[in-house]
Amino acid sequence: MNNKTFSLLLENKPGVLSRIAGLFTRRGFNIDSITAGVTDDPNLHRMTIATHGEDEVISQIVNQLSKLEEVIQIRELLPEASVIRELILVSVKASEEERAQIISMANVFRARVVDISMDTLIFELTGDKQKIDAFLRLLGHDRIQKVAKTGVTGLTRGMFKSSEAEIYNR
Amino acid sequence: MNNKTFSLLLENKPGVLSRIAGLFTRRGFNIDSITAGVTDDPNLHRMTIATHGEDEVISQIVNQLSKLEEVIQIRELLPEASVIRELILVSVKASEEERAQIISMANVFRARVVDISMDTLIFELTGDKQKIDAFLRLLGHDRIQKVAKTGVTGLTRGMFKSSEAEIYNR
Repeated sequence: MNNKTFSLLLENKPGVLSRIAGLFTRRGFNIDSITAGVTDDPNLHRMTIATHGEDEVISQIVNQLSKLEEVIQIRELLPEASVIRELILVSVKASEEERAQIISMANVFRARVVDISMDTLIFELTGDKQKIDAFLRLLGHDRIQKVAKTGVTGLTRGMFKSSEAEIYNR
Repeated sequence: MNNKTFSLLLENKPGVLSRIAGLFTRRGFNIDSITAGVTDDPNLHRMTIATHGEDEVISQIVNQLSKLEEVIQIRELLPEASVIRELILVSVKASEEERAQIISMANVFRARVVDISMDTLIFELTGDKQKIDAFLRLLGHDRIQKVAKTGVTGLTRGMFKSSEAEIYNR
């Protein structure tokens, strides 16, 4: 089993997200996370899909994706050649007495406080999966009230622009 | 036309993303962004959907969503009662001479440099749509090479926990 992250450049057409998600479901592929947004060019969407599975199954996914009319480019974001990031918001229980200690703990992770109430704090943290998991473990299951994650997005690093990671280009 | 952001708590079942995306497409609803991830409880997913449309159409969306078996809770994230955030990565052209000036400009937005090559920089920035759009405008279309966005995620602020924003609860 391998974890893989793909970056897709798509034409901004209605229903494209649904067609891609449907393709994964029908084939029984696993989507760990999916994020999508308009790029600097309003005609183009960049979608990032994190998936896991056997190499053979993942090759099938890529093959299927490349047949979709809206797919302009598919790249695999290799960990060593990419910046891969996720954003989470975590709401935690924190009394006035605990507040300073929890915030100083969060500072180690460069988490930002984005909301304070009488008995809660909300932190914003960005990072890769490992960093985010470590932060959530440190806060502890009992203290965490709510978690909202964006899922990962990513870009190939500047040094690797003409990278071998490109899989399909229309 | 109104922009609205919904936070859904979902059972972590295969194909749930595809069913929700499909529902939006079939009805001709607009998804501006969709993000989804596992919460602290591995059985639960939190999905955040940003959409726009007439109030009547949005009510239909919520009504349809609440009929899906996997949907446990739907909240509308009201801007004044919520923390709503997005993460973007932006790759920009930057010669050695321009680098310092571009970085100091980015510091105003608290953007972080996450990659440097001979002729490029990659910035990571979090914020709401307005902040992110302002940052991209400042960098300028000519300088921007690539943009990857996660789409928005959000949580209700601590003060508004027992908020009127809750729409549906199974």
